[in-house]
Amino acid sequence: MLGTCANAECKTRGVRERRRKFWGWGYEGDGLAPAEVEALARRLADAFGPDAVRRHPPPRVEDLVLRPPRIEPPSSLRHLFTNVPHERAAHAYGKSYRDFVRAFRAEVPNPPDLVALPAAEEDVLAVLAWAGDERVAVVPYGGGSSVVGGVEPDVGNGYRGAVSLDLRGLDRVLEVDADSRSALVEAGALGPRLEAQLEPHELTLRHYPQSFEFSSLGGWIATRSAGHYATLHTHVDDFVQALRILTPRGVVETRRLPASGAGPSPERLFCGSEGTLGVITRAWMRLQERPRVRAAATVAFHEFAMGAKAARSVAQSGLHPANCRVLDPLEAFLAGSGDGSSALLLLAFESPGHDVAPWLAAALDLCREQGGIVEGTSPGGAVGAAGAWRRAFLRMPYVYEQLVAFGMLAGTFETAITWDRFEAFHDAVSGALSARTAELCGGALVSSRLAYVYPDGAAPYYTVVAPARAGAELEQWHSLKVAASEAILALGGTITHHHAVGREHRPWYQREVPPLVLDALRAAKQELDPQGILNPGVLL
Amino acid sequence: MLGTCANAECKTRGVRERRRKFWGWGYEGDGLAPAEVEALARRLADAFGPDAVRRHPPPRVEDLVLRPPRIEPPSSLRHLFTNVPHERAAHAYGKSYRDFVRAFRAEVPNPPDLVALPAAEEDVLAVLAWAGDERVAVVPYGGGSSVVGGVEPDVGNGYRGAVSLDLRGLDRVLEVDADSRSALVEAGALGPRLEAQLEPHELTLRHYPQSFEFSSLGGWIATRSAGHYATLHTHVDDFVQALRILTPRGVVETRRLPASGAGPSPERLFCGSEGTLGVITRAWMRLQERPRVRAAATVAFHEFAMGAKAARSVAQSGLHPANCRVLDPLEAFLAGSGDGSSALLLLAFESPGHDVAPWLAAALDLCREQGGIVEGTSPGGAVGAAGAWRRAFLRMPYVYEQLVAFGMLAGTFETAITWDRFEAFHDAVSGALSARTAELCGGALVSSRLAYVYPDGAAPYYTVVAPARAGAELEQWHSLKVAASEAILALGGTITHHHAVGREHRPWYQREVPPLVLDALRAAKQELDPQGILNPGVLL
Repeated sequence: MLGTCANAECKTRGVRERRRKFWGWGYEGDGLAPAEVEALARRLADAFGPDAVRRHPPPRVEDLVLRPPRIEPPSSLRHLFTNVPHERAAHAYGKSYRDFVRAFRAEVPNPPDLVALPAAEEDVLAVLAWAGDERVAVVPYGGGSSVVGGVEPDVGNGYRGAVSLDLRGLDRVLEVDADSRSALVEAGALGPRLEAQLEPHELTLRHYPQSFEFSSLGGWIATRSAGHYATLHTHVDDFVQALRILTPRGVVETRRLPASGAGPSPERLFCGSEGTLGVITRAWMRLQERPRVRAAATVAFHEFAMGAKAARSVAQSGLHPANCRVLDPLEAFLAGSGDGSSALLLLAFESPGHDVAPWLAAALDLCREQGGIVEGTSPGGAVGAAGAWRRAFLRMPYVYEQLVAFGMLAGTFETAITWDRFEAFHDAVSGALSARTAELCGGALVSSRLAYVYPDGAAPYYTVVAPARAGAELEQWHSLKVAASEAILALGGTITHHHAVGREHRPWYQREVPPLVLDALRAAKQELDPQGILNPGVLL
Repeated sequence: MLGTCANAECKTRGVRERRRKFWGWGYEGDGLAPAEVEALARRLADAFGPDAVRRHPPPRVEDLVLRPPRIEPPSSLRHLFTNVPHERAAHAYGKSYRDFVRAFRAEVPNPPDLVALPAAEEDVLAVLAWAGDERVAVVPYGGGSSVVGGVEPDVGNGYRGAVSLDLRGLDRVLEVDADSRSALVEAGALGPRLEAQLEPHELTLRHYPQSFEFSSLGGWIATRSAGHYATLHTHVDDFVQALRILTPRGVVETRRLPASGAGPSPERLFCGSEGTLGVITRAWMRLQERPRVRAAATVAFHEFAMGAKAARSVAQSGLHPANCRVLDPLEAFLAGSGDGSSALLLLAFESPGHDVAPWLAAALDLCREQGGIVEGTSPGGAVGAAGAWRRAFLRMPYVYEQLVAFGMLAGTFETAITWDRFEAFHDAVSGALSARTAELCGGALVSSRLAYVYPDGAAPYYTVVAPARAGAELEQWHSLKVAASEAILALGGTITHHHAVGREHRPWYQREVPPLVLDALRAAKQELDPQGILNPGVLL
């Protein structure tokens, strides 16, 4: 067996001392507390009846039957690879409902044959060169939080094998430029490790996707991740100052610039490329001072649609709140942020120094004009409903994991749409989700929120929880996914606002994007990855 | 002769009743008033001596010797073309110093053989199909304001001829979506025509490049134009919601979305493509309410560098002023905004409704911390120095035209650089410009401003005026351009922040952008324009 687990970990300079679950979210041993588990069970029993809640024990790596590795690295590169079962299993899936269900069933038909753990860029280049020569597929792996099959080495039969290229060994902040509030960061840094290195400089990237703890800078860029800013600079794309990408044909390094008009943006070609054009190894990122001044409020509305109108008004005002999210009554209730009778708009402003009370006051005026009732303001920032919601938001992946253990069908769907079509779109998509789950599961909790708002539209987010039929979970999920995706596509939305395309969204992505653009991207890929070894099956 | 002038104009539904100069800026008959001309002459004589100012009469189209058209359109498309000399001459050049000098000399070696004036998208497709079959180069033409040779049909010997494809007939706002504050606009609309159609809806694109009067929406998108917003959404890219592009292989139409994470942004592939990948014919643009509330101020600094530090502080504050420009003492003086002893920072905030006085107050606090002396604030907005500067800014192209008539070498250079390198970069670039012009012309006025500021850097802009040596203007200009561009490239800047690449910046562009990115773009072009007829010689 190549690279014992301890050795492999060692290569990452002791950063990762704990082992990640191969079947769920986070580290082994972490999850909901027993009291939380029981509270969730009671809530589900209330909604679906006492028999709806099953109890599946988590799988053990010893119970997996993993296909033996089909390939071996050359001896000169042996030190870069591991094939220990836990690592192979942990790199077989991302963190979607489908992934959790298959892992719970101990079904892992396409594990990577090898996991590569480069400690330096030269190692990445060496792996790419070898893989090209040997016709081995390479799946770049950051934090592994994909919910769309983006890191799953299901690469088809055209390859001798598949390697998961885990960048966790490249996780350092290499340089900080305080004048330009920028830093050169290695792409494998997970959220907490990135922020911990920036903190002594009193700077922050302030990019908090829900996956923050277990997703990497490179993964965010490769998937056009959206952070916790609800307005203005939502997608990580805007914070990318320059990129360094290793392709099978060599290194691409773009120039550090605050802006340029020189041809199509080179960085934007790689933002969203999902590992198909090259491996992002470093990025100069635009940072911010840590916010010191905050003002926040919660505004209640009788209906979600009213809250959405208020959010639109705020998004179009030029006030640029740091938080501006609308929760429907169920979403608010489930997150512990309301009594279930009102939709809530969570509003927050922040700054590195100047008072933001006038900003909040102007935004609250706009909310009142739309019928909002201001429930509470807090000069200190994220407290009350907003604080409760944020804590719940970051815990949510553990909840999904537990829902799977309880035998629930649990999924999230996200998209974006312009305001003119929002109401009809939202009714149709949430209606399709409710109707399909009712058919499939006899009933469901379907909640929604506006995760992000823009002057010209919103990004609605839907959460579905329903009792799955034991053994039919994947078919039920697929059926629901098709219903949601077809509705979204037909009504003019995007197949993904921030979950990316991966393997799961590909059929709809290829219908959303103009065919000639796909041709152009394929031609660009052919140029950078002539042997087609990079993440085959994703996007293109 | 094809299409008399009157007929050609007629095709544009009467939008353009007046004839544009082929040798300078704007309509025939427009320019500086006689008193302004004499004031400028006196100022130049003060700076360079009484003999420095020559008087060149503008050229007449009758004096041009234009190569006879080498191609003829098929009879079925005859109605789409004109070959009248004035139209051919007016489409031979953009509006750079080089262009003005060559037009004054009546040197027009590469006029388009034909000018196409499509009245509908089908006409564009027909022209592209015919041009592909006949190996004719097609140069998309919007407002013709390129200062980098972007519309000059200097396409080399690989083509049977060259057509300038003037989109002025496609200039309508087709649809307005007030809810999403967006409009579908034909790409040939020049700035004033675009805004005039939006005004009844109380909306504005609010994109004011210096070329506003004679540049088009499609041109702005194709060149990643920067508008008058000094911070936040500077480049037009951010306002593009969806695009429709006609390529030789067919139509590309992207989906109207407020945001998406589905693969690399299709729109960003075409922003900055400068007519090489397709002809942008329509765009859904993100608009804004017309600003109703303004607050402005002018802040004086002893030195440009102090003003730059204050601008950096404001740019990093999250206050997002609509204007935040720093003029060096000479720039302020020449624009009539100061007495020449101080650098000035022009600061303005605006909103559709809420008071912005607290924003201005917070920004002025930051300016005072950097040693700024607040010269005057205006709750009404752009008055005082800022107002004077803005008026001068929009008149500037007429000044350049007059400078050429006076025999001056007159050029502008623009770039962008991160803050950490700004001071050394600025000293070196302005130093290189002064030194080279002193060598070439015995002396020069070199002024500079920060045209745009970002949290991570600035876009400095340099203006050079010097007495040219009669007959050697182009060689002197080239020598100066090389000196500036080499300095910019060596010190880490970009060859263009908002003037685009065209033919003139191509050598430096190709050194600025990673070679593999150029390969990828070439592959994308090959896919969309397999015969290579679109704007050959630009970018790639």
